[in-house]
Amino acid sequence: MIRNITYPLITIIKVGGAVVEDSASLEQLLDAFVHVEGPKVLVHGGGRTATQLATQLGIESKMVGGRRITDAETLRVVTMVYGGLVNKNIVAQLQARGCNALGLTGADLNLVRAHRRPVTPEGVDFGFVGDVDSADGARLLQLLQTGITPVIAPLTHDNQGHLLNTNADTMAQTAATALAAALKGDSEGTANAETPPAVSLTFCFELPGVLRDAKDPSTLIADLSEPDFRALVADGTIAGGMIPKLENAFAAIRAGVSSVRITSINDLTGGTLIQ
Amino acid sequence: MIRNITYPLITIIKVGGAVVEDSASLEQLLDAFVHVEGPKVLVHGGGRTATQLATQLGIESKMVGGRRITDAETLRVVTMVYGGLVNKNIVAQLQARGCNALGLTGADLNLVRAHRRPVTPEGVDFGFVGDVDSADGARLLQLLQTGITPVIAPLTHDNQGHLLNTNADTMAQTAATALAAALKGDSEGTANAETPPAVSLTFCFELPGVLRDAKDPSTLIADLSEPDFRALVADGTIAGGMIPKLENAFAAIRAGVSSVRITSINDLTGGTLIQ
Repeated sequence: MIRNITYPLITIIKVGGAVVEDSASLEQLLDAFVHVEGPKVLVHGGGRTATQLATQLGIESKMVGGRRITDAETLRVVTMVYGGLVNKNIVAQLQARGCNALGLTGADLNLVRAHRRPVTPEGVDFGFVGDVDSADGARLLQLLQTGITPVIAPLTHDNQGHLLNTNADTMAQTAATALAAALKGDSEGTANAETPPAVSLTFCFELPGVLRDAKDPSTLIADLSEPDFRALVADGTIAGGMIPKLENAFAAIRAGVSSVRITSINDLTGGTLIQ
Repeated sequence: MIRNITYPLITIIKVGGAVVEDSASLEQLLDAFVHVEGPKVLVHGGGRTATQLATQLGIESKMVGGRRITDAETLRVVTMVYGGLVNKNIVAQLQARGCNALGLTGADLNLVRAHRRPVTPEGVDFGFVGDVDSADGARLLQLLQTGITPVIAPLTHDNQGHLLNTNADTMAQTAATALAAALKGDSEGTANAETPPAVSLTFCFELPGVLRDAKDPSTLIADLSEPDFRALVADGTIAGGMIPKLENAFAAIRAGVSSVRITSINDLTGGTLIQ
């Protein structure tokens, strides 16, 4: 039985490597993040630093469809960069801002379990890349209820002793949907059921939101429905890395997340809204 | 108000780099660790891997009196190795053994606060090395009470956004004394005070315990008192890295830890006992 959270909204913010790897933009983000009211979760990437470290160590970084092929050496690199360098520096900087952060991977507290991605029909072996099986939303909720702010690195585990590399957008969507499910279950288990808090998921990246023309910020799509998204993919307006990002967003909505926002760190409450 | 732990003993085990960096000895340790009954904490080092990674990155490792001079580049290395690589692999392997591990640095949950060590009277600047100011034993206790096994990396923070490199033996001693203090305070606050659980601290290293002759295991000192320790240091029998290890041990006893053991992973309940 979980004690209810009185705040009406839980916010999950995902920030990519470009934001967290530049000290000025990271500080800007963390200043904004600590001012987000209510319980919150930060999910981060770190791909550029991982690529940089891999290069320094003479390990070639291979990407397929924007996803990193993760051999054993690369897994060591992402474990060090995501789970150590990026995660712990964010935690220390949040603590300095009075925010009681706790750095986590999916292995910690058995939070996110995954399995190694099978070789694709096209014969691509992503190596130690994890596709999520389940996540412990009740545990996340418990942390939030005790005033803790989870900071989640994009690593999962297979429950057999292996860490796996999982896309940070997927981790954020997983955390948000697991929280939404835990809140729903918690609310239903209560005798005099109250409306559970809503869960909002914000993807921060380098653009102001989903744009019709990536080079022109004035073409921002303020609201995006799933049928519109499908149409814009079909006509080529939305392409590349934005497609999996939006697939994650719509999957989150279908799974009970109240709203998803795609925006830049300059405007955490602006950008493109999906609900 | 903290709920009492019913188990009579809390065990803190510290393992050095030589143990955690060899996969066979790490597996042996973790197999033994999960069979330790009652609430437990694992504190680890990782110095050899840090030195190895530093070398690969062209960073020179400088040690003074067995302690690492930690410039900004070296801090990045130890953050990656201690907080990421070593810590998260131990967590994943404990999860595979059914032990609900949570990897932590001193920055996570604001667990261990430290200040940067001042330049020594001899003019040695250790850089980003942290001397511990305080630790949150009540929080550690709370984690143990919810069935969580903390796995602690030897990193602290200064509450101003900086991580600091802290000796792993010191971290273990800090965790043990903070737990002992929290348990004492908790017990005193209770109306019908019961005897609080005892706290035991075990330092695992490559020898079977404190030896009169480091090359001869039959010269094991089974019990060591502080006066005997001082005499053995004075006559040169105990020297080098064993001195700070034992200073940590006696400091822990003076601060309320019930017993300290110095042993190898082959015999977690043997070795040299200090109480």
